[in-house]
Amino acid sequence: MGVTSTGDDARPLGVAMIGYAFMGAAHSQAWRNAHRFFDLPLRPAMNVVCGRAESATRDAAEKLGWAGWTTDWRDVLERDDVQVVDICTPGDSHAEIAVAALEAGKHVLCEKPLANTVAEAEQMTQVAEEAEGRGVLSMVGFNYRRTPALAYARQLVERGVVGELRHVRAQYLQDWIVDPEFPLVWRLQKDKAGSGALGDIGAHIVDLSQFLTGQRLTEVAGHLTRFVERRPLPEAASGLSASGGTELGEVSVDDAAVFSGRTDGGALATYEATRFATGRKNAMRIELNGSAGSIAFDFEAMNELHVHDATAPAADAGFRRILVTEAEHPYAAAWWPPGHGLGYEHTFVHEIADFVRDVAAGTAPTPSFADGLQVQRVLDAVERSSDAGAAWTKV
Amino acid sequence: MGVTSTGDDARPLGVAMIGYAFMGAAHSQAWRNAHRFFDLPLRPAMNVVCGRAESATRDAAEKLGWAGWTTDWRDVLERDDVQVVDICTPGDSHAEIAVAALEAGKHVLCEKPLANTVAEAEQMTQVAEEAEGRGVLSMVGFNYRRTPALAYARQLVERGVVGELRHVRAQYLQDWIVDPEFPLVWRLQKDKAGSGALGDIGAHIVDLSQFLTGQRLTEVAGHLTRFVERRPLPEAASGLSASGGTELGEVSVDDAAVFSGRTDGGALATYEATRFATGRKNAMRIELNGSAGSIAFDFEAMNELHVHDATAPAADAGFRRILVTEAEHPYAAAWWPPGHGLGYEHTFVHEIADFVRDVAAGTAPTPSFADGLQVQRVLDAVERSSDAGAAWTKV
Amino acid sequence: MGVTSTGDDARPLGVAMIGYAFMGAAHSQAWRNAHRFFDLPLRPAMNVVCGRAESATRDAAEKLGWAGWTTDWRDVLERDDVQVVDICTPGDSHAEIAVAALEAGKHVLCEKPLANTVAEAEQMTQVAEEAEGRGVLSMVGFNYRRTPALAYARQLVERGVVGELRHVRAQYLQDWIVDPEFPLVWRLQKDKAGSGALGDIGAHIVDLSQFLTGQRLTEVAGHLTRFVERRPLPEAASGLSASGGTELGEVSVDDAAVFSGRTDGGALATYEATRFATGRKNAMRIELNGSAGSIAFDFEAMNELHVHDATAPAADAGFRRILVTEAEHPYAAAWWPPGHGLGYEHTFVHEIADFVRDVAAGTAPTPSFADGLQVQRVLDAVERSSDAGAAWTKV
Amino acid sequence: MGVTSTGDDARPLGVAMIGYAFMGAAHSQAWRNAHRFFDLPLRPAMNVVCGRAESATRDAAEKLGWAGWTTDWRDVLERDDVQVVDICTPGDSHAEIAVAALEAGKHVLCEKPLANTVAEAEQMTQVAEEAEGRGVLSMVGFNYRRTPALAYARQLVERGVVGELRHVRAQYLQDWIVDPEFPLVWRLQKDKAGSGALGDIGAHIVDLSQFLTGQRLTEVAGHLTRFVERRPLPEAASGLSASGGTELGEVSVDDAAVFSGRTDGGALATYEATRFATGRKNAMRIELNGSAGSIAFDFEAMNELHVHDATAPAADAGFRRILVTEAEHPYAAAWWPPGHGLGYEHTFVHEIADFVRDVAAGTAPTPSFADGLQVQRVLDAVERSSDAGAAWTKV
Repeated sequence: MGVTSTGDDARPLGVAMIGYAFMGAAHSQAWRNAHRFFDLPLRPAMNVVCGRAESATRDAAEKLGWAGWTTDWRDVLERDDVQVVDICTPGDSHAEIAVAALEAGKHVLCEKPLANTVAEAEQMTQVAEEAEGRGVLSMVGFNYRRTPALAYARQLVERGVVGELRHVRAQYLQDWIVDPEFPLVWRLQKDKAGSGALGDIGAHIVDLSQFLTGQRLTEVAGHLTRFVERRPLPEAASGLSASGGTELGEVSVDDAAVFSGRTDGGALATYEATRFATGRKNAMRIELNGSAGSIAFDFEAMNELHVHDATAPAADAGFRRILVTEAEHPYAAAWWPPGHGLGYEHTFVHEIADFVRDVAAGTAPTPSFADGLQVQRVLDAVERSSDAGAAWTKV
Repeated sequence: MGVTSTGDDARPLGVAMIGYAFMGAAHSQAWRNAHRFFDLPLRPAMNVVCGRAESATRDAAEKLGWAGWTTDWRDVLERDDVQVVDICTPGDSHAEIAVAALEAGKHVLCEKPLANTVAEAEQMTQVAEEAEGRGVLSMVGFNYRRTPALAYARQLVERGVVGELRHVRAQYLQDWIVDPEFPLVWRLQKDKAGSGALGDIGAHIVDLSQFLTGQRLTEVAGHLTRFVERRPLPEAASGLSASGGTELGEVSVDDAAVFSGRTDGGALATYEATRFATGRKNAMRIELNGSAGSIAFDFEAMNELHVHDATAPAADAGFRRILVTEAEHPYAAAWWPPGHGLGYEHTFVHEIADFVRDVAAGTAPTPSFADGLQVQRVLDAVERSSDAGAAWTKV
Repeated sequence: MGVTSTGDDARPLGVAMIGYAFMGAAHSQAWRNAHRFFDLPLRPAMNVVCGRAESATRDAAEKLGWAGWTTDWRDVLERDDVQVVDICTPGDSHAEIAVAALEAGKHVLCEKPLANTVAEAEQMTQVAEEAEGRGVLSMVGFNYRRTPALAYARQLVERGVVGELRHVRAQYLQDWIVDPEFPLVWRLQKDKAGSGALGDIGAHIVDLSQFLTGQRLTEVAGHLTRFVERRPLPEAASGLSASGGTELGEVSVDDAAVFSGRTDGGALATYEATRFATGRKNAMRIELNGSAGSIAFDFEAMNELHVHDATAPAADAGFRRILVTEAEHPYAAAWWPPGHGLGYEHTFVHEIADFVRDVAAGTAPTPSFADGLQVQRVLDAVERSSDAGAAWTKV
Repeated sequence: MGVTSTGDDARPLGVAMIGYAFMGAAHSQAWRNAHRFFDLPLRPAMNVVCGRAESATRDAAEKLGWAGWTTDWRDVLERDDVQVVDICTPGDSHAEIAVAALEAGKHVLCEKPLANTVAEAEQMTQVAEEAEGRGVLSMVGFNYRRTPALAYARQLVERGVVGELRHVRAQYLQDWIVDPEFPLVWRLQKDKAGSGALGDIGAHIVDLSQFLTGQRLTEVAGHLTRFVERRPLPEAASGLSASGGTELGEVSVDDAAVFSGRTDGGALATYEATRFATGRKNAMRIELNGSAGSIAFDFEAMNELHVHDATAPAADAGFRRILVTEAEHPYAAAWWPPGHGLGYEHTFVHEIADFVRDVAAGTAPTPSFADGLQVQRVLDAVERSSDAGAAWTKV
């Protein structure tokens, strides 16, 4: 009979999280659980969470498992028990917080999109690269890279399963604002969110397509659309859901973005990001077609990867539905037996686990701020192309 | 005991078919069988088929069930026992044959694309409209409209199931020329085929998207791509398959086409037509998203239609997989019990059945040459947009 | 210019068909078209169809393409222009017609189930085996064996893809009599149909499971169920659909059959045949699990076969969705390009093509009457097991 | 700025967990996280975990988040800070521990199957019912009931969506012991596990079928099979995976169980539980067919429920694929936005959340030990039927 001695075998890694809404809840779950499933060299200590309103922040701390709370994010930079700042706020504050944190010597995990403008992202990247020289590390939170099926897809591409890449076909389809009475939450306001479907969900498929293929977009052509121009101002806006009042305001971001791209490897890529795909809830889909085979994925069935081997005899070829839950698959050995699937939140657990290991080892995590900047440049090129009548535009 | 008296109860409708390859075989199957499953006011009489080479044409006539054959298509225009000319040749000869046939007072069924150029299509349409005044009818062979699932989808749209249309998402994915050793068959030669993936399969999804939605594309932006520039000259080119020799020739059409469009109803449409989607054999997919619901289809599962009703309570909403094989579905009552699916060729049987009925009734069939011309104009606008750096281009 | 000379290159094979309802329509379609797609050494001549009512039979002959008609099936046995008798009547008349036809020297194609009783099937088989010695051939119409996906599955099993067989999981799910107001058509009457779901659709999955695996059932245990005891007597019963009157009659066959079996190869097989699986229209499903792999099929998606290779590394294994439309697949080269699927009726075209080839070559077709008898014995054992309280019963 | 005050707003509920392998890890995850997502009236305090080996138990405590550990389960019964005993051991020790815990006044959550024999289960149920009179509560851990899709399916059945139930079709297909070299772990030993596929996974589908339908099995007929008689003795047996040595031992449980059942509502149910369904990893499937509709589920796609409404017009009917991730769905509001799916472990989080609420409210949790006993009786009847040659056997 005995008591467990917390902290003996793994030094703590003090964490401060800024923001506690949708992303904050997902990150907290990951901070709480990563070391329960993965052997981590440092044990995350959830020391402080920061929000704007005192009461709500205190409740969030209690609920999400943070030992303390503050309403001033600058507080956390002065704390000795904070080695990591995890930024879960809307995009308009990313640059200021991240730069300050890095300059204060804190490792930074920053939610995507890295920033609302290329200029901010460039500044952040420069600061991050300088900080890396001092052993201060940074990562941008493209969590979907850590979906086991997609991490495995990356391995397959590296193994040559796709061969010479011809097509990337990426879609991120949601439908949560189909109703014109859905209120004008912060994600629909350009000053807070930077952009709409493009920056929120389009950013994910741009990042993923480059991550999976190992190729970068060099030019894009596309356009942004807004179907609903005015919406009720929210009475209590929080995250993805809210109730609207009677007063209307201008929607200032895109409802949907459609664009094509050419990669430095000669492939043709198409992208569609929309919040108006009625009936599609979180259909983040990506398909690669190449000379040797194809890979297809849909997040609505996130434990499956579909792989076609075109080098097999024609009579035997077909898309294989791989349940990405075998011990041999990325991250899967930490969890349950084959066929016992994982969920959305696990992408964050994997992200945190990898981040903690990199921090402990002093190696640079990926995706880096530079990766985030590259995505930002693609999004910016799409906006410029849209403004220029859909013409091809260099990234 | 008795013998059946052919022709008593239905007058014959004499048919001549020009061309006997892939499309010719499909049309012949339809001419042979349409009156076996549908009550037709006229009984098709397969009187003559026309090809270039005597021996091969004679063999085709025998095989496909044509009573006679000829190597000069002008012959058939002079025959009194020919009331219909069915044009199944490559696109470069459509205009000449169709115009002559209409002027000779023959009803015309012309395979798609209507022509290889807008100018030809305009001429054909003008001649067709004049002919219609004389009771001489014409139709362009967008056979996929008669897929029961898609004919039913059109009914659903008319019923308001989709509501205000937001998105059209259309893809036609094939992979039959992924191998760079696949030879330079006529479908890869601009002078014969007019264009590549764009005109061959892109034409289908342009037509379908306009047919299903009842909306027309007003402007498009896109681009064409060629992945393989040179291929072996074919030793014996016929239809979709052939063996290549050692000499190389220039591919003169596109391998893939990607474009977006705006409709006169305010929807945003995306299109991808490619012959390089490894593992996708005949994945003609189309999805409509609107304020009230969505409809999705994939020809690789052609007996299914997926319909989402967004007016249902959220907890009960989901894409319904309708097996479009009930007696209440378009064309289905003529065939087998529910769940006993149909195949590719049935789209032609339905097309012929409808065409024969229209001819008997003296009503104008759809899709008309004008519909074919409209598709041609869209394809032309895509080519112009591609030449203009993907800029928005009026149809 | 010329006329086609019918009959020069292929001698005619005179066919008489007995019965012209659902199965008769499907067989007629096959007789009309088999030689259009397959090179057959004999050309089917659809000389005479036989039915009970004169007017309806004459109309059927006209509609289905038979040159003559009769109301007495014995007539056809005396005709010199009849070499094949194709029996499409309900099971209660199979034995009498088949025996007479074989003894008259006519080749026989007999719809399944071979007979309504084991005794009849035994007699038929004995007569058939004697006839075979005189060059008179016979076949039982388990058409689903000629579904390309299932014919290919058989090849895969022979190739060793499944390895040592452990499980067979077969279901045939329909729902056409869920409504208790559906009338008492002949398929629900024991004297006509022999049995209900068991003999009608259960027979198919018993045959298929033995065909695919190459193993025979040695004992079975199961039971039959009837959910609706009385139904309206039909006013105009024909085939699968009819309208019911106000008078009720006793349903005398099973609505559903559930049974297990042990094979001579040590596998455990399960079967379910039902007409009460609401929403399942023609879900004939079969899955094989073995030491090396698995194969799965569902007729509602009849152009697909799903194959799992358990000898691949665990991380790469998964069910492959093979579109069985490649030229290398059984029967597929005769039809359309890859991805252009076939339908229900094609199983009959393939059956007729194979039958004609066997008749021309003088080789015994499969499935033979002996195969049909074996299925009949299994069905009989299931009935006996059901009567004996579900106990294991030798076939 | 402040610190969170743990425990102020919710009194602690002291928990002891016995066993820490596969189920222990899953339960621990649930105990750690339930109150983070659900508002619970009591806050679980993970006070002590019990195992056999000291070192491994201490490590498990540390890893899984238990404050203390012991190697004698009786210790925990004497602790004042333990109100709940959570039993995650193999079935052979359930009865002893559960009875002692209940008699010591501890609430008990016991993993399924409730016990290895009916006699034990009866004793446990009697003790549990007496304890309930003293406010001491108990629950058996059929976690799959708390899969959101299945909890919702139950609501749909109660709402009448299925109508008069005709068929239950339940399968639990796994493949983890297909390889005869897989070692003889405890789950393959009768003295530890009670039975094989039947008790381990068959128990789940028996429970679920009764839970979903609200009907009880009254008699069953079936049989158990063993494909591999001898396996390597494990060198280090733990949970589902282990490496085998060279010595062989007798497998003493079934590899597969197949049975049918009749319910007190007149439905016919079929069950198959196997660990030899090559390629099926955790395919727990259940389908209900009734007069008004059908419901289908497969755990390999656990966020989906397929619902067919047979009262809709035939042309519009089809299985609806509902993503069970809407706020209106059971448990879903606690988690992520629509389309962001959950995983296997969430079933345990829901189970714990419901259990804690019941304990706080003093209401009896479900499934009760009596429910577990009923399942045990079904399993026992299946074994007796198997011994009696598959004959119908009363539950």
